[in-house]
Amino acid sequence: MYRTHHCGELNASHINQTVTLCGWVQKTRNKGFVIWVDLRDRYGITQLIFDAERSEKTLMESAKNLGREFVLQITGTVIERASKNPNIPTGDIEILVDSLTILNEAKTPPFTIEDDTDGGEELRMKYRYLDIRRNPVKNNLIFRHKVTQEVRNYLSSINFIEVETPYLIKSTPEGARDFVVPSRMNEGQFYALPQSPQTFKQLLMVGGMDQYFQIVKCFRDEDLRADRQPEFTQIDCEMSFVEQDDILNTFEGLTRHLLKTINGVEVGTFPRMSYDEAMKTYGNDKPDIRFGMAFGELNEVAQHKDFKVFNTAELVVGIAVPGGNSMSRKDIDKLIDWVRRPQIGAMGMVYVRCNEDGSYKSSVDKFYDQTDLAKWAELTKAKSGDLICVLSGKTKAVRAQLSALRMELAERLGLRNPKEFAPLWVTDFPLLEWDEETQRYHAMHHPFTAPKPDHIELLNSDPSAVRANAYDLVLNGNEIGGGSIRIYDKKMQALMFDHLGFTPEEAKAQFGFLMNAFEYGAPPHGGIAFGLDRLVAILGGQETIRDFIAFPKNNSGRDVMIDAPSPIDSMQLNELNLKLK
Amino acid sequence: MYRTHHCGELNASHINQTVTLCGWVQKTRNKGFVIWVDLRDRYGITQLIFDAERSEKTLMESAKNLGREFVLQITGTVIERASKNPNIPTGDIEILVDSLTILNEAKTPPFTIEDDTDGGEELRMKYRYLDIRRNPVKNNLIFRHKVTQEVRNYLSSINFIEVETPYLIKSTPEGARDFVVPSRMNEGQFYALPQSPQTFKQLLMVGGMDQYFQIVKCFRDEDLRADRQPEFTQIDCEMSFVEQDDILNTFEGLTRHLLKTINGVEVGTFPRMSYDEAMKTYGNDKPDIRFGMAFGELNEVAQHKDFKVFNTAELVVGIAVPGGNSMSRKDIDKLIDWVRRPQIGAMGMVYVRCNEDGSYKSSVDKFYDQTDLAKWAELTKAKSGDLICVLSGKTKAVRAQLSALRMELAERLGLRNPKEFAPLWVTDFPLLEWDEETQRYHAMHHPFTAPKPDHIELLNSDPSAVRANAYDLVLNGNEIGGGSIRIYDKKMQALMFDHLGFTPEEAKAQFGFLMNAFEYGAPPHGGIAFGLDRLVAILGGQETIRDFIAFPKNNSGRDVMIDAPSPIDSMQLNELNLKLK
Repeated sequence: MYRTHHCGELNASHINQTVTLCGWVQKTRNKGFVIWVDLRDRYGITQLIFDAERSEKTLMESAKNLGREFVLQITGTVIERASKNPNIPTGDIEILVDSLTILNEAKTPPFTIEDDTDGGEELRMKYRYLDIRRNPVKNNLIFRHKVTQEVRNYLSSINFIEVETPYLIKSTPEGARDFVVPSRMNEGQFYALPQSPQTFKQLLMVGGMDQYFQIVKCFRDEDLRADRQPEFTQIDCEMSFVEQDDILNTFEGLTRHLLKTINGVEVGTFPRMSYDEAMKTYGNDKPDIRFGMAFGELNEVAQHKDFKVFNTAELVVGIAVPGGNSMSRKDIDKLIDWVRRPQIGAMGMVYVRCNEDGSYKSSVDKFYDQTDLAKWAELTKAKSGDLICVLSGKTKAVRAQLSALRMELAERLGLRNPKEFAPLWVTDFPLLEWDEETQRYHAMHHPFTAPKPDHIELLNSDPSAVRANAYDLVLNGNEIGGGSIRIYDKKMQALMFDHLGFTPEEAKAQFGFLMNAFEYGAPPHGGIAFGLDRLVAILGGQETIRDFIAFPKNNSGRDVMIDAPSPIDSMQLNELNLKLK
Repeated sequence: MYRTHHCGELNASHINQTVTLCGWVQKTRNKGFVIWVDLRDRYGITQLIFDAERSEKTLMESAKNLGREFVLQITGTVIERASKNPNIPTGDIEILVDSLTILNEAKTPPFTIEDDTDGGEELRMKYRYLDIRRNPVKNNLIFRHKVTQEVRNYLSSINFIEVETPYLIKSTPEGARDFVVPSRMNEGQFYALPQSPQTFKQLLMVGGMDQYFQIVKCFRDEDLRADRQPEFTQIDCEMSFVEQDDILNTFEGLTRHLLKTINGVEVGTFPRMSYDEAMKTYGNDKPDIRFGMAFGELNEVAQHKDFKVFNTAELVVGIAVPGGNSMSRKDIDKLIDWVRRPQIGAMGMVYVRCNEDGSYKSSVDKFYDQTDLAKWAELTKAKSGDLICVLSGKTKAVRAQLSALRMELAERLGLRNPKEFAPLWVTDFPLLEWDEETQRYHAMHHPFTAPKPDHIELLNSDPSAVRANAYDLVLNGNEIGGGSIRIYDKKMQALMFDHLGFTPEEAKAQFGFLMNAFEYGAPPHGGIAFGLDRLVAILGGQETIRDFIAFPKNNSGRDVMIDAPSPIDSMQLNELNLKLK
């Protein structure tokens, strides 16, 4: 036994006890006649004291030469501190050290091991093992562990079974790009790493497992956008003999359980909103509803005057910024510049000041009178003191622009409180979306998603109008989970592959095993998958997933700590029957 | 809601209730005027009844046409059964069906969905989703889930944190062969899939995580021996500031917890035995100690006569087979043939019958008298009625042969009771083993294992004598876990790489990040990894791991259900900058 206690547990009740502790030197203060050392381990910090009167000379000498991050084992007596530190659990005591063993020395770390470090992102990633010593990173990893434990215990308690599905599976061209793994034993053939266990969980339903989950790594070889990882973790779930409502209720239960046990927050019934409604009201299929600023569509009350910009627009739509009338002309001009940035892409912005006296002052007073503006205020739910911001243009584009503006303003107004949680379900997603590049429809969710039964006829006449029993769980403006009711009928699945442009032969080659399985008695089923990295980050009050992953990769998919990927030797390539081009 | 109840929960207390159930048709019995259907789901079987008097005609017609494995939704009334079945929880009732919906039809399955199926291994693997409907497979998967839940809850309760380590890591030629993953974004470079998270868990210790675990998939591209899988699951664990005893105690606690909660078996303190002792006593580093037949070494009492075979042998060693004297001469001749099979490789076997009257009759009476044989009996602990079997030859070979014989005899005598659990620790493994092929020493455990401090000097003079702080947990003759105390000093690690034949450059290229990490304050640490597949199989009273894996691969590393691996299209290869040779 290297130690009798951790560095976070000693307090006044231990005074006079002899203890042995291990840990890292957080800092030393040398006053000549007395030396204090803060000793740190995962559990906390305990102050050590060496003093000229009570400690042996050789011990004092050793203590003087301790560097930051040296690894120590010390034995000593717990004594009361002269000057207490009420900010830490061990702040009432310190250890008068009798013996000191340096278990390992340390070079000066390349950045400070403190909550606010001086290390930049790249340096911290290269020395991630030192970064993990810092409380914020360490606590994020512990937090992640707690979340997964709660997920597992909750789902297990309601009869879900965690089943491990394989990682070496089959490549399919549908969806994102696969990572592939050459097979040595099967020459010229490749496994693929799963983008998700989708087909396996459906096969488990055909196999009668009834309620399945798995916390599982998934892989996508995509060009990495910011905050995407080539490997990421899903909470993957599937249930048999369920309708959409059963799934929403079950996983609303899980989410409510997490918010309660992890965050101590009680949340009521989650709002449910159709995709169409979310797009209309927030311009976004993952609206942040911690705050208002719902869209008011103004076509009817803005296209009857001579303002050409509005009259030629497909959509005129505004939001009321709470208290926005306090903005100066200069502030508003800056806001207009902001929406005109290429990343947002609006042509301009019309605004209306809602004065305290009930009058309105707009940037388009030339065209609109007080009665017009009052109607705008009504439709955007503006109150006096607010500022109405109005954009116009093509429906899809203008909704995206106004949604971005809404989020930006909420951020500036401090309305995106990370301690507040506003979940909602967005349902009835489109089944298909048109892909300009390939000039064909793609499955919006995936090819196994069931269309709404009364929309099946529309598949031929108006594919983009077909809605699916597909749903997303949205939390604070982030999609944290998504799923659907699946097709469980072979004919329907074949019809769907047909609409997605698969020949029957292609469908058979790629998904034959699933379609075969459907011939042997598939139950109605559906499921959901949560992005664990993002879920944990949001529950942790943050938005950067990288901070909740122990060893993340950078935007080029590299692990800069271990320097992977890297060349392999030619013998390995030979064995795999491969050649670099 | 598709159903009000599962098929396993209704009993007499539900009589007269109207219920809706879903499930698969297990079997139908049509007596003309009455039809019974067994409806099955994950939770059990409920009997449905349709009868000519009480059911509508159209319903009777539908019921007549139900095939095996059809998926049904039925509504009906719970009634008391005329002839009860005490063997199942729902055996007191049946459902008088009012309405029947066929949710999906089913082709006749290629094998019977019953506990004892008529399907061969290959057929069952191809249709694994049907195999999973069978109770033995389904229950194994549920059992596996329970074991992992208990592992996670136990380790979490004693401050272990589950941390996910990456799957896309770096290839290292040491150890088994890696599966590699070509990187598209980093041309000509490859990731490797982890053979274990070994270096990452050590880096987590350097990072101060203190107590880590992870239930994690690992990958080895080996030619598959029977019952090995290219992907397998480990319970991977690491602790800081520990000595060997701390680790043994901690994981003895975990194992005892599993035996108690999963199997209801209380086990006392686990015996601890050195590697050398295990080899001497059982000829094996993973002895099954559910039964005796410990080895008796007989050189001293068998090499003083004219029996050349023994006199020229490096080792003469025997075991006493309990009650073995009841074997006929023919039985014993067969046993001799068995040990002479090429798989075992003994040249022959000497035996001694221990008669009830205390006398001995041996196959070498020409050379040895009653006094000699009495000494053999003493050393093998043979009692009257036993049979002593003696082998001789080179120490290493003869131990392996006698160990095989011991296991075979135990099997025949029914001494390997799967409901009995006899764990033990085998400790003090050799640090290095000589590899004839490469003509150099290899790490027996892995290159991060610490030699026993007082053996470090032997590294130069007698490498094969160096013992390590390395240990295995053995259960019923299977290694279920293994680990070691790690090197945490950069110089010691460099010395070890040197002894393993790495140049400093090679060591740096492959493990530089770990050796760098050791410069920044590495704590003393050690760990263990359990093979989950095998652990679950043994706790489940079986020895075939494939039966506890949802979607296993065959001996060629193929998933015959999804037909993976498979060729990928040339565009994929192009993007990866690869060519088939």
